[in-house]
Amino acid sequence: MTVTNGGTHLSGPVLIVGTGLLGTSIGLGLRARGLDVVLSDISPSTQAVAQDIGAGRPLDPSDSAFAPELVVVAAPPDVTGALVVEALAAYPAAVVVDIASVKDSVLKAVTEAADDAALPRYVGTHPMAGREKSGPVAARAELFTSMPWVICASGQSAPDAVRTAEALAIDLGAVVSRMSAEEHDQSVAVISHLPQVLSSLLASRLQDTPAHALSLAGNGLRDVTRIAASDPRLWVQILSANAGRLVEILYGVREDLNRLIGTLENPLGDGARLDMAQLMAEGNIGQARIPGKHGTPPETFARLTVLVDDVPGQIARLLTEIGDTGINLEDLRLEHSPERQVGLAEISVLPGKRHELTDFLTSRGWKVVQ
Amino acid sequence: MTVTNGGTHLSGPVLIVGTGLLGTSIGLGLRARGLDVVLSDISPSTQAVAQDIGAGRPLDPSDSAFAPELVVVAAPPDVTGALVVEALAAYPAAVVVDIASVKDSVLKAVTEAADDAALPRYVGTHPMAGREKSGPVAARAELFTSMPWVICASGQSAPDAVRTAEALAIDLGAVVSRMSAEEHDQSVAVISHLPQVLSSLLASRLQDTPAHALSLAGNGLRDVTRIAASDPRLWVQILSANAGRLVEILYGVREDLNRLIGTLENPLGDGARLDMAQLMAEGNIGQARIPGKHGTPPETFARLTVLVDDVPGQIARLLTEIGDTGINLEDLRLEHSPERQVGLAEISVLPGKRHELTDFLTSRGWKVVQ
Repeated sequence: MTVTNGGTHLSGPVLIVGTGLLGTSIGLGLRARGLDVVLSDISPSTQAVAQDIGAGRPLDPSDSAFAPELVVVAAPPDVTGALVVEALAAYPAAVVVDIASVKDSVLKAVTEAADDAALPRYVGTHPMAGREKSGPVAARAELFTSMPWVICASGQSAPDAVRTAEALAIDLGAVVSRMSAEEHDQSVAVISHLPQVLSSLLASRLQDTPAHALSLAGNGLRDVTRIAASDPRLWVQILSANAGRLVEILYGVREDLNRLIGTLENPLGDGARLDMAQLMAEGNIGQARIPGKHGTPPETFARLTVLVDDVPGQIARLLTEIGDTGINLEDLRLEHSPERQVGLAEISVLPGKRHELTDFLTSRGWKVVQ
Repeated sequence: MTVTNGGTHLSGPVLIVGTGLLGTSIGLGLRARGLDVVLSDISPSTQAVAQDIGAGRPLDPSDSAFAPELVVVAAPPDVTGALVVEALAAYPAAVVVDIASVKDSVLKAVTEAADDAALPRYVGTHPMAGREKSGPVAARAELFTSMPWVICASGQSAPDAVRTAEALAIDLGAVVSRMSAEEHDQSVAVISHLPQVLSSLLASRLQDTPAHALSLAGNGLRDVTRIAASDPRLWVQILSANAGRLVEILYGVREDLNRLIGTLENPLGDGARLDMAQLMAEGNIGQARIPGKHGTPPETFARLTVLVDDVPGQIARLLTEIGDTGINLEDLRLEHSPERQVGLAEISVLPGKRHELTDFLTSRGWKVVQ
């Protein structure tokens, strides 16, 4: 892939259609790398914000000579297909990509409505970089740094167009992952849409839970429900667009749930405990398959837990001393305790380093509690 | 509550029946505070390990004069009731507590089998301090520090016995929470057993998920499935003992799941999107009710995300500089990116401090990406 003088793989101009969180973040990222970015949003106020924070310049309707190298459709899934078709027609020399979080439905919409001659210029993509917040104000140039960016070339996508789509991801610091729209939608149905649905199903049960019960909540409940805070408007579109694949997985969940309910209704019945043990064991197996940091399995790190006072600088002091040992901190999480001003820092290191670090920290007066 | 010369509320001796993770941790904690601790486990090897790491001395069968102040039954839920009844009979002057994670079934077993005159000396309790690891080797004296410890006095528990049970929790640094066995089991059914079941149901779906799909997994999937790694043997006993309460909640989950499945089977049908939006919105509401750190609602903290290189000392340097500002780090989590040697540190601070910290970090050359 050729690199321009600016050090980017794209040369621009890049037209971004839709200046929400992702579109504006793409604009900021490309502008930061010196590319000419043009913005367009159906909402003038939204577009104005994106311009004000430096994501690009407004589209000039009178400039009939405007010929972008790349058009990025960053609109809600619902309208993405139509906007891609529009862009393919309006900019006959441009590569057009979209970034919707579902890909097959968009590809179908484009294939049906667009001029066949234009289809080689379209490439579906999905940057896996969401945020709880939305809108251009939450946008950041580095939003995609080191995050996966799935490139879904269709059978008709031209190699040059695919290279341009990948150039966008690479220029924004993302990690390119290639799969078909079908593979992508199957993948996100299980790794993204299913967890979202189960987290929401669980969290909705908490609506009437007494406060004294919630006061006992630990990190387990917090972890399982964290993504239940996601934006309903966006998720309705995502779930609708991937309904067929998601529902197939939910049939399996329902089967397991019904089996578990039957077991719990008769917990002393034959094989009841075996059924429960099997569900738990299958959960163990599935959980262990999730790659950890940098694609390494979770098992490869050893954990130790250190007691820290909840005052400014405590954790910094702890990590500074760990840094002094030259032992790399593979992961860290703080576990806070109710009511008390004290917390537990769970530190992950390479297994070989565990004892060395435990001894060291203990010698420095830290309480290693696990 | 009177404090002994040793600075503890208990005066001992304390007999611990069952030297697994929790029993041994209680022994270590009480020994560290100078109390006389006597250990007993049906497995001689397990008990030997607990003794070797200093959790207490062995029970001497020939010492007929042995009269513990307190007996702590720290056995699996299945056998807890019988062991409590045994202890009440064997030590007529002792208060007897258990620490099983289900309380109503244990109370019923004790009430049925024990001498009525002995019931005032029994108090059910539940220290909410689990660990992924089990066994005496994983035990730590500080395991209960700042964790909730539920005290479930029965109608028949004597005030003195309740004080002794609370003294155990307080001497181990736990935070006492009082509720009935019924309230406790209802509470843990929703805040502990339900999340465990849904996490396992989700994780079991990952058994056959292709690796290329799992490679796209983000923190969302990791969070929702983390507790699916829990020990099946223990959980079978917990789920069995609380089956009736848990299944009632699962009926509601099944109802919601069936409604969602119906909606996804006909995503373009009347009100389909409204149904999906409602599930998501109810999830938002329930999730927002979970108390955050130190009982404060999650909303009370502002978050910013900083890009950190994945080399020793980087996070330490970041937190040291934050510490220098005197701004307290309310929470921290590391979000690691696949393949790249870079991570994102998500920092929570009081909302009023967000901009000050962002400006400060930016001025120090940190990339604040959100």
